[in-house]
Amino acid sequence: MSGQAAERQDPVHWVYSFGAGAAEGRADMRNLLGGKGANLAEMSLLGLPVPPGFTITTQVCAAFYENDRQYPDGLKAQADKALADIGTQVGKGFGDPKNPLLVSVRSGGRTSMPGMMDTVLNLGLNEETVQGLAELSGDERFAWDSYRRFIQMYSDVVLGVDHSHFEEILDEYKDSQEYFRDTDLNAEDWKAVAASYAARVESERGKPFPQDVHEQLWGAISAVFGSWRNARAETYRRLHNIPESWGTAVNIQAMVFGNMGEDSATGVAFTRNPSTGENKVYGEYLINAQGEDVVAGIRTPQALTREAREEAGSTKPSMEEALPQVFTQLCQIFKKLEAHYRDVQDIEFTVERGKLWMLQTRTGKRTAKAALKIAVDMVDEGLITQDEALLRLDPAALDQLLHPTLDPQASRDVIAKGLPASPGAASGEVVFSADDAEDLKAKGHNVILVRIETSPEDIHGMHAAAAILTARGGMTSHAAVVARGMGRPCVSGAGALRIDYAREMFSVAGVEIGRGDIITVDGTTGEIISGEVATIKPELSNDFARIMEWADAARLMQVRTNAETPGDVQVAREFGAEGIGLCRTEHMFFDADRIIAVREMILAEDRTARVAALDKILPMQRGDFAEIFKVMAGLPVTIRLLDPPLHEFLPNTPDDIAEVANASGMDDEKIRRRTAQLHETNPMLGHRGCRLGISYPEIYEMQARAIFEAALQVKKETGAAAQPEIMIPLVAMKEELQILKQKIIAIAAQVEQETGEKLDYLIGTMIELPRAALKAGDIAIHAEFFSFGTNDLTQTTFGISRDDSALFMNDYIRAGIFEQDPFITLDQTGVGELVKIAATRGRAARADLKLGICGEHGGDPASIAFCHEVGLDYVSCSPYRVPIARLAAAQAALTSKKR
Amino acid sequence: MSGQAAERQDPVHWVYSFGAGAAEGRADMRNLLGGKGANLAEMSLLGLPVPPGFTITTQVCAAFYENDRQYPDGLKAQADKALADIGTQVGKGFGDPKNPLLVSVRSGGRTSMPGMMDTVLNLGLNEETVQGLAELSGDERFAWDSYRRFIQMYSDVVLGVDHSHFEEILDEYKDSQEYFRDTDLNAEDWKAVAASYAARVESERGKPFPQDVHEQLWGAISAVFGSWRNARAETYRRLHNIPESWGTAVNIQAMVFGNMGEDSATGVAFTRNPSTGENKVYGEYLINAQGEDVVAGIRTPQALTREAREEAGSTKPSMEEALPQVFTQLCQIFKKLEAHYRDVQDIEFTVERGKLWMLQTRTGKRTAKAALKIAVDMVDEGLITQDEALLRLDPAALDQLLHPTLDPQASRDVIAKGLPASPGAASGEVVFSADDAEDLKAKGHNVILVRIETSPEDIHGMHAAAAILTARGGMTSHAAVVARGMGRPCVSGAGALRIDYAREMFSVAGVEIGRGDIITVDGTTGEIISGEVATIKPELSNDFARIMEWADAARLMQVRTNAETPGDVQVAREFGAEGIGLCRTEHMFFDADRIIAVREMILAEDRTARVAALDKILPMQRGDFAEIFKVMAGLPVTIRLLDPPLHEFLPNTPDDIAEVANASGMDDEKIRRRTAQLHETNPMLGHRGCRLGISYPEIYEMQARAIFEAALQVKKETGAAAQPEIMIPLVAMKEELQILKQKIIAIAAQVEQETGEKLDYLIGTMIELPRAALKAGDIAIHAEFFSFGTNDLTQTTFGISRDDSALFMNDYIRAGIFEQDPFITLDQTGVGELVKIAATRGRAARADLKLGICGEHGGDPASIAFCHEVGLDYVSCSPYRVPIARLAAAQAALTSKKR
Repeated sequence: MSGQAAERQDPVHWVYSFGAGAAEGRADMRNLLGGKGANLAEMSLLGLPVPPGFTITTQVCAAFYENDRQYPDGLKAQADKALADIGTQVGKGFGDPKNPLLVSVRSGGRTSMPGMMDTVLNLGLNEETVQGLAELSGDERFAWDSYRRFIQMYSDVVLGVDHSHFEEILDEYKDSQEYFRDTDLNAEDWKAVAASYAARVESERGKPFPQDVHEQLWGAISAVFGSWRNARAETYRRLHNIPESWGTAVNIQAMVFGNMGEDSATGVAFTRNPSTGENKVYGEYLINAQGEDVVAGIRTPQALTREAREEAGSTKPSMEEALPQVFTQLCQIFKKLEAHYRDVQDIEFTVERGKLWMLQTRTGKRTAKAALKIAVDMVDEGLITQDEALLRLDPAALDQLLHPTLDPQASRDVIAKGLPASPGAASGEVVFSADDAEDLKAKGHNVILVRIETSPEDIHGMHAAAAILTARGGMTSHAAVVARGMGRPCVSGAGALRIDYAREMFSVAGVEIGRGDIITVDGTTGEIISGEVATIKPELSNDFARIMEWADAARLMQVRTNAETPGDVQVAREFGAEGIGLCRTEHMFFDADRIIAVREMILAEDRTARVAALDKILPMQRGDFAEIFKVMAGLPVTIRLLDPPLHEFLPNTPDDIAEVANASGMDDEKIRRRTAQLHETNPMLGHRGCRLGISYPEIYEMQARAIFEAALQVKKETGAAAQPEIMIPLVAMKEELQILKQKIIAIAAQVEQETGEKLDYLIGTMIELPRAALKAGDIAIHAEFFSFGTNDLTQTTFGISRDDSALFMNDYIRAGIFEQDPFITLDQTGVGELVKIAATRGRAARADLKLGICGEHGGDPASIAFCHEVGLDYVSCSPYRVPIARLAAAQAALTSKKR
Repeated sequence: MSGQAAERQDPVHWVYSFGAGAAEGRADMRNLLGGKGANLAEMSLLGLPVPPGFTITTQVCAAFYENDRQYPDGLKAQADKALADIGTQVGKGFGDPKNPLLVSVRSGGRTSMPGMMDTVLNLGLNEETVQGLAELSGDERFAWDSYRRFIQMYSDVVLGVDHSHFEEILDEYKDSQEYFRDTDLNAEDWKAVAASYAARVESERGKPFPQDVHEQLWGAISAVFGSWRNARAETYRRLHNIPESWGTAVNIQAMVFGNMGEDSATGVAFTRNPSTGENKVYGEYLINAQGEDVVAGIRTPQALTREAREEAGSTKPSMEEALPQVFTQLCQIFKKLEAHYRDVQDIEFTVERGKLWMLQTRTGKRTAKAALKIAVDMVDEGLITQDEALLRLDPAALDQLLHPTLDPQASRDVIAKGLPASPGAASGEVVFSADDAEDLKAKGHNVILVRIETSPEDIHGMHAAAAILTARGGMTSHAAVVARGMGRPCVSGAGALRIDYAREMFSVAGVEIGRGDIITVDGTTGEIISGEVATIKPELSNDFARIMEWADAARLMQVRTNAETPGDVQVAREFGAEGIGLCRTEHMFFDADRIIAVREMILAEDRTARVAALDKILPMQRGDFAEIFKVMAGLPVTIRLLDPPLHEFLPNTPDDIAEVANASGMDDEKIRRRTAQLHETNPMLGHRGCRLGISYPEIYEMQARAIFEAALQVKKETGAAAQPEIMIPLVAMKEELQILKQKIIAIAAQVEQETGEKLDYLIGTMIELPRAALKAGDIAIHAEFFSFGTNDLTQTTFGISRDDSALFMNDYIRAGIFEQDPFITLDQTGVGELVKIAATRGRAARADLKLGICGEHGGDPASIAFCHEVGLDYVSCSPYRVPIARLAAAQAALTSKKR
């Protein structure tokens, strides 16, 4: 606030004019003028035909809201002057009954929020000026039609008189006259309709429709500013992470008319195909129409080019054919704009009686596929550099290209919607338990695992499933995180589902789906669909490969992956992962063939019994690591020793308990008692991580041995193994690391002695607790690397459990407390300060300390930029995010180089 | 390590000599010489009769352990020289067969660890020197008795030959000679016994008993250093928070003998009565005995003074009567030592043939009651200043004086032991539910609430109970914390108890205790006793009042209390609380007469229903606050708005559910569903604190209204009300506070308008999450005060749940990872850094920001000292800790003034 106040020293420039080859603004003043205003100014400067106008800045919007919806001093005078200048340029007067200037009043924020805010056209018409317009245009029908449109639009937007009133009047009028289409109405008809409109406005609001054009203007301006905080706009901003503080600008511009006859038209165009990226003009237009007609979809628009018309098999003339001269001029402007902006432009234009007017240009939105092609093409055309190509791609959008998607042509019977938790889509038979999923998958079925929520015990089932669907849990629930990690499509938090495990069915919206029924889960949209929908497997284009190659050359940070199953590790390697940043050993413990031994280990009453159980697990873990080390030959593999609380592994059902009792020789009662003993109130903050290693060192000793033996085994077999980096989780105190490190070194020494081979490994820790970050200087004395576990660090720094945050996260985002879910994008000033503190103190204590991140944030582009700034050596993310991270890391490097 | 290494530049002084009016050491070199060595040096410097000797420093101990039990270079030479100097002084030679020097070898750490480490006496005796001793002393029996004592002690301590061997030999010998007492043995007998001892040692260890006196000496020194890490010593250190790194010194001193006839004696004394504090010599002695005889308790010691002898009704002569001259000399030395050390001394002395030798002096341990009396008396005597009196009291020890204690004379049938979770003791009938406790209490019974563990739902029962006993949970479990807060005795974590709620009984060690059976719970010792044991209510002495008065004058921080029930608030006020630092509003929600309305509120399906339920609660809350405001007239009262997750209030049992269903008109199924919906995986990190206020603002609005209305009501009734300070819990982001503050201000404005009265209040927040501490600068813009909630801040900074920490806390303390439980004493470098960051950033943003602490640490002396250093304005603690905090705050102020 104080910064803004300082900027507002008199005389403040509240208003920026444009038009006639000149402008006070520029394209790079988007924050102040909004995108539309800045580009109108830029087009004016380029000498393009832009109807003159002016922009009221976003600062006015901020002042308006701060000051109880009052305008700042000086605005009115500046706006009056700018309005007079428009009149001078077009030779008309605002409110002049003979020669009236009409204007449009449009919103325009920093980024486009299509259709979210209000617009008023034809402003400046009243009972007098409508007659002037009629004379001036020589078209009385056009004038009265414009006036009635204005009354309707203005009353709806500014006066709060619902548009249904006007539709009703028009329908009644047409009925009374037995008209069918609007084109049946003549000038007198429109005049009568306009009179009815005005009468209805007066009866609804108790005051006549405003005739004072200045009152009209300021009413419209206030309505546009007011629409910044309407419900639609707020929702849009929340969904698109647009801060409320940005505000909107308001553009007032002389009206031009595409509805003044057959030599008039209005249209929209992209300079290249935004869907495929092809370098061909793409767009549509309507003869004798106003812009709103194109958007409203009442008339079917026509193609711009003949080629497009022919492709669509249409007979309606293309603009190329109907208005060839204007079309040629338009194409020249397209070239000029692309050359100037060096990017695809999305354009609005109007042709008034054969004269072309440019109403808007902006960067064209495009699909991920198109974005890649356009970027690569423009590099090849010499229009942009490789760096620019990299910088203008949205890394997150790559996600679309990597996962299978539903065939957009197929029909969908959507029965419910949840959160789009993990992209991609799959169809399969519904199952309600992880074991069932595994069994059916083994028999060759595609299955969809449906759970109220998932837990680590379900991992094998999630692996077996083609997709996962849960009734509870948010975008960062266990199901969501694990599914993204595995690249499985997932819809979470589908609260409408009533799941009945006992009956093996769920019901939703009157539909009942039982075990074995086929559904399709679309993790990209959150849709749950009855029956099968065909999917398309993505083919990665050559453009993708080239972009990745450029990105790898540009980035400074390494990109690793979070993976532990051989399949995931392989996928990640193919996506370009340069090692593993997080290999979670506990997932390996849930496999059906070893969970019994794991349970015996946990239930053991003393060290001897525990060691005996661990001896059974050792060869299995060694085998796991050996597979991973083979795939990651020559690359670093960070293995996190056992992390979750032991009770997560314990049996819950009587059957499970009986099985364990049978295998271990313990009685059921004892197992139940031990399970109760291990129960925790807040397992996240409980007996887990290195605390297990301190209490039961033999577990970590077994894991260390498995790692070392696997490394030597693979080296022997293949001549090249990965370099193990052993990671101790949940360290809060240097003593924890110190003690456990010594034990691991002792195991390494034993293995070296037993084999006569030399081991090459690092020992480090996760920094995932605030205390660890603060004490990083002490901890680094014992750690050869730090990996920031920002999931847990976010949980403890905020005091928010990911598993429980769904209960209030929506309230928080709605209240504007969170601009973004901090479990998705790193909270840079809070959690991020701890990361910085840890990096600084850690490196001060050990200059060659290796720093990385293995939380979910390692795959989030904004967070990756932060990691680059902090100076991390690598980021690690789930396999399907590796390409995203490669690109985001390149962008971060390029951006900071530019600074 | 590096620091120590730097100190150890050659020539290092490993050895410090003392004796004959001179010494290389001083009393203030306790860290280097240990307490015993430093005081022997000091007494030498004072010219007191101290047998000459030397001290091997604690640095040698550290070096010994660091260097694989090898001694540093130079030690041997220095020790040899010091030993030769002793010989010169006493005119004897170590190992000289004619004129042998005998020495004692004793441990001596910084602080006394009585009986924990090893001692060797009479060292220097062998088959030759024993004969020299016989000639020199003219007492052959004494010489051989000494030698056999030496063989026994040395073999036990140094050679690992168990003392039972020697007892067996002696018993057999006495049987063979038909002797009954040791005094029946003559010189020849002892000679024979010594020979058998030596033979047994040789057969046990395969080598003869060492005859080389230097081998003897270094064997003994190593044994003493080695005993620093024996199991007894480690346990003692863990219990008394003594760091292992301190190490022990070893004192080698010329032997003097209290067993050389009727003019010889040995004794111990306190310069004042350590139990009552009375200014009278207190001690006991034995004629013709060695020190070990006094300790061993074989002979009953005699009183020092005639008065004490007469009081005890003994006929055995006091020292005053038996050795009047030496007694007079001893009393003079007592005076001299008290005047010199300016504190009560605990002394060991020996009289050898009429000559007095001082063997030890140290500060005398005393009861809390004695400590107060001695301090006040010494101030009155002009011996110490008031500041010194305050500084030498242990604030934590005051606890003993404030709670009822069991009559130490009464017999106890201890059936089990748990953790001493909340001091004090009480007897009563066993009940197993909070409701039962409340019912029986209402009927006038004393009840002991026995639970597996407690939860907030049990609060009313805990209030009703005279004491609380749980089978689970540590010193900081819910039961422990709440009980301490209420001043209820509590034993927690009595794991041996098998509690059967269904049968309303528990069993332990074969005993079954059912509902209504009487037990006694001693929260000071952790004992659980069958039947009733008489208790003594404490009477606070005038000494206590004077100390508190001095403390209040000295301290800079205010002391408030954490309390919400009228009873607790009253107690705290009487103990000198200057306001309330934490009034937890949720405890008020559990009262039987309002829990139904609270549950209706939580189960409400929309805002309207919730507001209706809240309207029922409003007058009750207003009444609660009014009572508190009356007691705390004129003082600040910090009220924390609702904090715990809502599900804590929900019904669990079918009866409870039915009751709520009945009252609210909801069906059981819906209640069950809502309860399941509110279930949280990690409630500590869940939907609680201000997150409730954001989701359901009407709850906080009701509470704010109750506070404001109560303040005005009390002001009207009494003319003086407390000043409310409204505290928003669990803030992580400034926006949370900003939003809720506005809502509270709006309520205040409403109440002001309704009543025409002006309200005086503050709005602030708890700093209990790492992020809040880091963002304190932003948060302080909206907060008028911060209260550090160090319980939760410790949980989140360490990532450790208090409720679950018991599962590994012992492993951690055993491994030396925690020197102290961070939930009891604030972790100054980790959590403390966040407190400092928050204080600094908060005050930078708002200079007059009021800072306090309301975590359990607010009653812990070490943590209070930290709070003073950080510059907090107040500490707040449970009512019974208020006097402790007043004293600790005074000490902190005095200590920092001294610096």
